[in-house]
Amino acid sequence: MLILLDQDNVLADFEQGFLEAWQAAHPDKPSIACEDRKCFHVKGDYPVEYVNHVEDTYSGPGFFRHLKPVPGALKAVQELTAMGHEIHICTSPINRYHHCVREKYEWVEAHLGYEFTKRIIMTKDKTFVRGDILIDDKPEITGLQAPVWHHYIYDRPYNRSVTTPLRLDWQNWKDVLLADK
Amino acid sequence: MLILLDQDNVLADFEQGFLEAWQAAHPDKPSIACEDRKCFHVKGDYPVEYVNHVEDTYSGPGFFRHLKPVPGALKAVQELTAMGHEIHICTSPINRYHHCVREKYEWVEAHLGYEFTKRIIMTKDKTFVRGDILIDDKPEITGLQAPVWHHYIYDRPYNRSVTTPLRLDWQNWKDVLLADK
Repeated sequence: MLILLDQDNVLADFEQGFLEAWQAAHPDKPSIACEDRKCFHVKGDYPVEYVNHVEDTYSGPGFFRHLKPVPGALKAVQELTAMGHEIHICTSPINRYHHCVREKYEWVEAHLGYEFTKRIIMTKDKTFVRGDILIDDKPEITGLQAPVWHHYIYDRPYNRSVTTPLRLDWQNWKDVLLADK
Repeated sequence: MLILLDQDNVLADFEQGFLEAWQAAHPDKPSIACEDRKCFHVKGDYPVEYVNHVEDTYSGPGFFRHLKPVPGALKAVQELTAMGHEIHICTSPINRYHHCVREKYEWVEAHLGYEFTKRIIMTKDKTFVRGDILIDDKPEITGLQAPVWHHYIYDRPYNRSVTTPLRLDWQNWKDVLLADK
């Protein structure tokens, strides 16, 4: 299969990285634990007066480069590759792209190796990308075209109100993919 | 139509930019005029002992950001958009991606406006991208999948040995696209 993997919160732990960066930058302000997050976009869970601070936290230099891998993600990429699947990374840059786009490549080089950077597909609109499946934590993925991939939702607290797509994480993915065969 | 436009040598004048940067950095070494170029990759036209210098010339900071638009390209994007086509930019980063990926976004923001950065699709393998046509100066575009787009080759001296795809430039594109309807 041609498998497209989202990067943030599927491979790279944006959630945990944001929480730590937020608490370090704003120890006086409230923070939201990962398991209590409700909105896909983290800024949607914070009071409106903090939106600029939230955006600043993940837009500055070093944020994307220093994210830790999601537990189990790198092993899953190795196993999927060993099973003969073609793995590509399908990722959208944030609106303030300046550090994000380069650092997403650097993250992939650091954690999956330089050759894997050639498997990055960076696009705001993932419906332009061809693949058999897309594993992505975003609840609804829309764009200019009707997608050709099947969406498997990567399980996160903020996407559990969505019931339609098949749901997996890096602990149960083998059972889910196998059951769907 | 969903029209995919390559960036280097279709929108941004990599050829002219390289020649000027090369001559500035290496006034003592021979250079090759744009009309005498034979290979798709510029380093293929230079003596093998200069390959590292050639790569350094287009890999350093500022190279991609400061490329001039290909004459007629920006007007063509405006006209294609006004005709109702959906225009996206489909571009491959160079292997030494560190400055290139960010600066390709900055170039689009500078010349086509910030909102157009959301229409960038960055991938090494363009066969993963869905569109009706792809306008690209690369003679043969292959990848893991059979492409779904029709390739129009953007006319350049180094791709004139290829006769199969339809050929156009920003002077004659209206006639070529209209003749193909």
